[in-house]
Amino acid sequence: MRIGIVGYGNIGRGVESAVNKAPDMKLVGVFTRRDPATVSTLSGAPVFAYDQLKAMKQDIDVLVICGGSATDLPWMTPELAGSFNVIDSFDTHAKIPEHFANVNAAAFASGKVAIISCGWDPGYFSLARILSDAALPDGDSYTFWGRGVSQGHSDAIRRIDGVLDARQYTVPIPAAVEKVRNNEHPTFTARDMHLRECYVVAAEGADKAEIEKAIKTMPNYFDEYDTTVTFVTQEELDKNHSGLPHGGSVIRSGRTGNDMEFDNTIEFTLDLDSNPYFTGSILTAAARAAFRLNEEGQCGAKTLFDVPPAYLSQHTREELLAHML
Amino acid sequence: MRIGIVGYGNIGRGVESAVNKAPDMKLVGVFTRRDPATVSTLSGAPVFAYDQLKAMKQDIDVLVICGGSATDLPWMTPELAGSFNVIDSFDTHAKIPEHFANVNAAAFASGKVAIISCGWDPGYFSLARILSDAALPDGDSYTFWGRGVSQGHSDAIRRIDGVLDARQYTVPIPAAVEKVRNNEHPTFTARDMHLRECYVVAAEGADKAEIEKAIKTMPNYFDEYDTTVTFVTQEELDKNHSGLPHGGSVIRSGRTGNDMEFDNTIEFTLDLDSNPYFTGSILTAAARAAFRLNEEGQCGAKTLFDVPPAYLSQHTREELLAHML
Repeated sequence: MRIGIVGYGNIGRGVESAVNKAPDMKLVGVFTRRDPATVSTLSGAPVFAYDQLKAMKQDIDVLVICGGSATDLPWMTPELAGSFNVIDSFDTHAKIPEHFANVNAAAFASGKVAIISCGWDPGYFSLARILSDAALPDGDSYTFWGRGVSQGHSDAIRRIDGVLDARQYTVPIPAAVEKVRNNEHPTFTARDMHLRECYVVAAEGADKAEIEKAIKTMPNYFDEYDTTVTFVTQEELDKNHSGLPHGGSVIRSGRTGNDMEFDNTIEFTLDLDSNPYFTGSILTAAARAAFRLNEEGQCGAKTLFDVPPAYLSQHTREELLAHML
Repeated sequence: MRIGIVGYGNIGRGVESAVNKAPDMKLVGVFTRRDPATVSTLSGAPVFAYDQLKAMKQDIDVLVICGGSATDLPWMTPELAGSFNVIDSFDTHAKIPEHFANVNAAAFASGKVAIISCGWDPGYFSLARILSDAALPDGDSYTFWGRGVSQGHSDAIRRIDGVLDARQYTVPIPAAVEKVRNNEHPTFTARDMHLRECYVVAAEGADKAEIEKAIKTMPNYFDEYDTTVTFVTQEELDKNHSGLPHGGSVIRSGRTGNDMEFDNTIEFTLDLDSNPYFTGSILTAAARAAFRLNEEGQCGAKTLFDVPPAYLSQHTREELLAHML
């Protein structure tokens, strides 16, 4: 399979790394809206201008689109699905039905497959939610994120006056996780499930008390959570908080039995040193599935809900039956 | 969907309970090789003789076969796949390729779908293995079972002279689980991963030392493990060990990054009050998928690897996109 990467940020690098290691894939190159001469890839993969994509339609089997959900993917995924099998990691949960409809129209028209919202949430966490719900229809599902860096929350802090840099960790509250595991079927507020830990570099002379207040009262991002703010130097931030770890758990607690007398939990947990590299790895597996679905004649928008798990795997059916089933 | 259950042991009861609660299913009845007059169902579902199946072909959309892997399923699943969409929970790992081939031939000839090896292992644990391998191709997977009752090991103890009853718990060793979670990529012997805890009721006058020795040295079942044997009265066994809890974890530890510099773990854990009722619940979800696959024109043998997860769910595509993705 010949793979192209559109966009070369952290996730694009993750896809590059995963594609280069996949025995059944070849990386054609990276496509960027920046000047290609200014972009150099980690593996030496060639860099092309976004506008060259049209001319290279015959050279690419699947495009992995590594753009942002806010402004890139809503137009880019439908546009590219008009000519290519595509994968994206669209993650604005509330707008997924709209995005799906737009991409579906384009991919149906072109006869290509577009798998949207592939990553770990949405993505593998979505699979954990659907599979655990199917096995335990009478129950409640809970998603805990972290401990990990939320780039959206870090960016929100950086936009405050007097803040030079910041890193925000989302932290699940252990007592909440325990209640779910103990089949208590709790009803949580946002505050009950997660803490927000902020490490902030303030400008010289900035009013730290004001910055702390601005963070803790920020609507949507922080006001509904217990938030801690720790001021650090840029050196400390760079030294102790430069990574992008993440993870979390989807837990479903549900009952079985004639009188619902049996409690059960299903738990799916990720612990990731690098969020973007793991996301890139899942996008790469999804690219394999898109190619195979299209080869068998399918088209239109899909999600991982529509993908037979075998299509994600680089192993043969014989290997899967013998070693993984 | 009109569902029939073949065989009425613990798993058959689990399927009965799950089908009765599924809004999109109707239980036609239970089919047994015993005298139907001697079998009464928990929900009052009608009981038919196994031989009546042929005549009821038009009344059933999917048969869930709840027989044993040793002697029932090897002939029963191919025979019934010759006329029906079927589900089984065949779990003799080493013989899965052979069973798959036999069932596939029958289901292709009849134009029906047969999903084999549906349960939690093989089944949902298999899904955890394939999905985590696809996301982290460079890594190692480990399966821990328990703490839970192994019926095969309990039966093996009961066959020893002087044993009236027994219950065996398979217990994962916490230090081994921790090594995997810590990305140490350990190489384990059987003894490193699991303990075996046995609760045994001895006949009056039986030589307990001999029984304990016979258990601990039993080839395949116990000799490769550290095993504890505790003698209890029948009353104690009935009071404290009458349930069939089980569970366990599939953990994959794998690296991402250009220089494989990032460690990651994916963990899928089940904690089940009742093994057979959970198995019955998964078989029921698989029956839904078999019906849908056959409706769209597919036939032949399948495993959960071949099933788009959405097909297992009772929810509509709109609900899935809005609430689970």
